[in-house]
Parts: sequence; structure tokens; C-alpha cells
Amino acid sequence: MAKEVVPETARRRRRPTKQGVVLTERLIVETALRMLHEHGPEGLRVRRLGMALGADPSTLYRYFRGTDDLTLAIADELIGRAMNGWQATGHWRADLRDLGLRIYSAYLAHPEAAVLTASRVSGRGNEIATDETILGVLRSAGLPDPDVVRIYHAFIDQTLAFAALDAASLALPEAARTADEAVWQATYARLPAHTHPNIAATAPLLVARMNDSAYPTALDMLLDHVATTLTAAKTTDPGP
Amino acid sequence: MAKEVVPETARRRRRPTKQGVVLTERLIVETALRMLHEHGPEGLRVRRLGMALGADPSTLYRYFRGTDDLTLAIADELIGRAMNGWQATGHWRADLRDLGLRIYSAYLAHPEAAVLTASRVSGRGNEIATDETILGVLRSAGLPDPDVVRIYHAFIDQTLAFAALDAASLALPEAARTADEAVWQATYARLPAHTHPNIAATAPLLVARMNDSAYPTALDMLLDHVATTLTAAKTTDPGP
Repeated sequence: MAKEVVPETARRRRRPTKQGVVLTERLIVETALRMLHEHGPEGLRVRRLGMALGADPSTLYRYFRGTDDLTLAIADELIGRAMNGWQATGHWRADLRDLGLRIYSAYLAHPEAAVLTASRVSGRGNEIATDETILGVLRSAGLPDPDVVRIYHAFIDQTLAFAALDAASLALPEAARTADEAVWQATYARLPAHTHPNIAATAPLLVARMNDSAYPTALDMLLDHVATTLTAAKTTDPGP
Repeated sequence: MAKEVVPETARRRRRPTKQGVVLTERLIVETALRMLHEHGPEGLRVRRLGMALGADPSTLYRYFRGTDDLTLAIADELIGRAMNGWQATGHWRADLRDLGLRIYSAYLAHPEAAVLTASRVSGRGNEIATDETILGVLRSAGLPDPDVVRIYHAFIDQTLAFAALDAASLALPEAARTADEAVWQATYARLPAHTHPNIAATAPLLVARMNDSAYPTALDMLLDHVATTLTAAKTTDPGP
């Protein structure tokens, strides 16, 4: 469809659709999240989304340039939900830990959308606000800016990486996910010590742990690293 | 298709296909990797794969129970490629770093396959051998088994998580990937200090770093954690 050259407000007048629903960017994004859950990536097809909204598919292009633009809006919605109601305590470790777990959980709540959006960079409002917040926590802790950015990079990508990995498991068909989870007990725990001494020696520990997310452990390692870097920075810095 | 109840060797006799190709599990997996790259997830459809191999689709079921089984074989092929030719140096830090980067790179070399398989647990030969190796490096370093398994879990999932995240970027259509990469310069670097002081103060550092992978940084944090844990374990342990 050719883009109409009319002012945004005119393009988006709040006229109800056939089903009497007033279209908004937010309503489209929320419907897209539901369609992704019900139909996987196919749920983002404009025709299908239009049907779900009772709107002519062409109307959707007044709000989004296409599926990629809508995907970025979904990414920004997820990160917005993560930050909803967040308040700093002023303690960098508690704040960073809370931010990491909030972002991870917001993506995990929508596995199909998470798989599609975790790697994206939208440059939209919620993403920018989140990045400003995380950088602020690290800078207020007293880290030099090169450390701030190095740690910010690892922090946000580690959070999104585990979100992508764990969401991919959750988004699998039930039978495949259950079969994968059973492998630790059914295969690993039965390997004999004479062929696989290290797996055999740790099998009960592996079975107890491997179907949980490693994100909290990896997050704590990162927070320990921040603490060590802060101590080193304070030792080196002769102060004002 | 109903499964034929004939011995595996009979089912898989090495009879050439119409194109004169002798089907093997390995050839099917290699073809599937190529088809995934060319067609995305659709490349795994049995009909399409059969056409690419010049084989009747039904023949493929003699090797794989279905797409999910084939997906697990692809996962095992990627991890096998990662380990191909690996030799321990006996220095845990160098060995773990090398293992992490090898696994990450093997997945990144096949982004579409990586996105599909990074979260899977196959319990197949190469996966088991890799896990035995990593556990062995951590145990030989002198860590107690609960630490071994906690760190092994974080190590392998962090590696696969970053592989999934960074592969998802690489698997994007070129235009979307380029647009995402441009956001740091085009949007973040232009935010004014009075609205976004932390982003504005670190913008050049963000632009220089954010389009690279954070995996090596996160890996080094994990290796530092292993070193600290080892020191603590040795201080606590009174020795034999």
C-alpha cells in the first residue's frame, strides 16, 4: 500500500472500526501480543491482525509502516512493562538486580514475542528511558564511564540473551519442551562412571538444576564483578 | 507416515536417491543447515528437504522421526563442530575461555540454525561429550561439585544465550539489521544532556561498543568468578 501523505493526526482519527473498536497504537500492540501467543510469528501478519481487530488491514498501515515497525513497537512495549512502577532504592546492587529480573520476567511473560524482539534495538521511548536508568544506576555507584558502558553492555545483553534462550524453550510445543527437560534424568543421569566420570559424579546436581534458568546465577556473577570494579576504582582514585 | 517396523540397518540401506546421492544422516543434516540458511525455518519442511536431496520425502523418515528430531540432530552437529579438534591445555581458564568462544562461534556461523537449536537439549553424542569435557575442566581445577555444577550451568547457558541473541540479529533481513545498528548513532548519540544526562555523557562509548557482542565481556566475568571461587575453596579447605 502506498503511504498516504496526510498529517499524522488526520491519518489516525479515532474513528471506530467495523466492530466499534477505536484503534490505537497500544490496542494494536496488545492484540499483536495475543496473536503472537496464539499463532506464533504468523500472528503478526497484517491480514490476520486486521481480522482480529475488525479493521481493514490497510488501516493498520496508518499506525505501523509494516511488520518490522510493529515488531519494534512490541519490543518497546515489553521493556515498558518491565519498568512499570519501578523505583530506585539508591542501592546500586539491589537496583541492578531488580532491573535485570524485571526485564527478564517481562520478556518471559510473552515467550513468542520475546524470541522475536529480544535482539532488536528500537530507539523508542521505553527503551531509551530504561537505558538512561541503568546507566544512571551504574554512574551513581561511582564507576568511571568506560566501566559503566562495558558493564551496561554486558548487563543488558546478558539479560536479553537469557530472555531469548529461556523464552525459546517456553515457546516450544509442549511435547518438545517436556522431552528436552526429561533428557537430564533419562539420559545424563544414566551414563556410567567408567565412560563419563564427570557427568556420573555430578548427575544428581545436574538433574536438580539444569531445567531452571541460569539467569539469576549469571546476574549475581555480574553484580560481584561490579562490586570488585568499584573497589578497584576507589583504591586507584586518590579522591578529590 | 506410519513408522516401518524393520531393523535400522535395513531401513537405512545405502541405496542412492534419484539424483544418485547416497543418503546418510550427516548428508541430511548438512543439507538442512544449508536450507535453513536459504529459506529460514521453512527450509526444514520435509517436502522441501526431500526435493533438495532428490529423495522422496518419505525416505527421510527412515533417518528422522520428524522435524523436531532433525532439529535436535542439527543442534548436535553444531556443538560437534564447536569441539572439532579441541585439545585441553590443562589450564582451566584458557580451556574454558576457548570452549566458550568455540561454542559461541560454531552457532554464530549458522544463525538460522542457532536461533532454532540453542535452547534445545538433545542428549546426543556430541552434546554429552561436550558437557563431560566442560565438567571435567571445572572439576580438575579443584572446585567442589556443587560449585562445578552451578558454574557449568551458568557457563553453558550464558554461551548459548548470547549465541541465540546475536544469531537472531544476524538472521534478520539485512535492512532491519542495518537499521537496528544505526540506532545508537542516529538516536542515542543525539539525545540532549538536559533530558538524558547519562546517555549523553556516555554516547561515544555506547556507539563504539553496542553493535559488538558482549559475550567475551560476560565470559571474562564468569572466569573471574571461577578464580574467586577457587581461591575461596582453597582457603576454606584444610587440605588432605
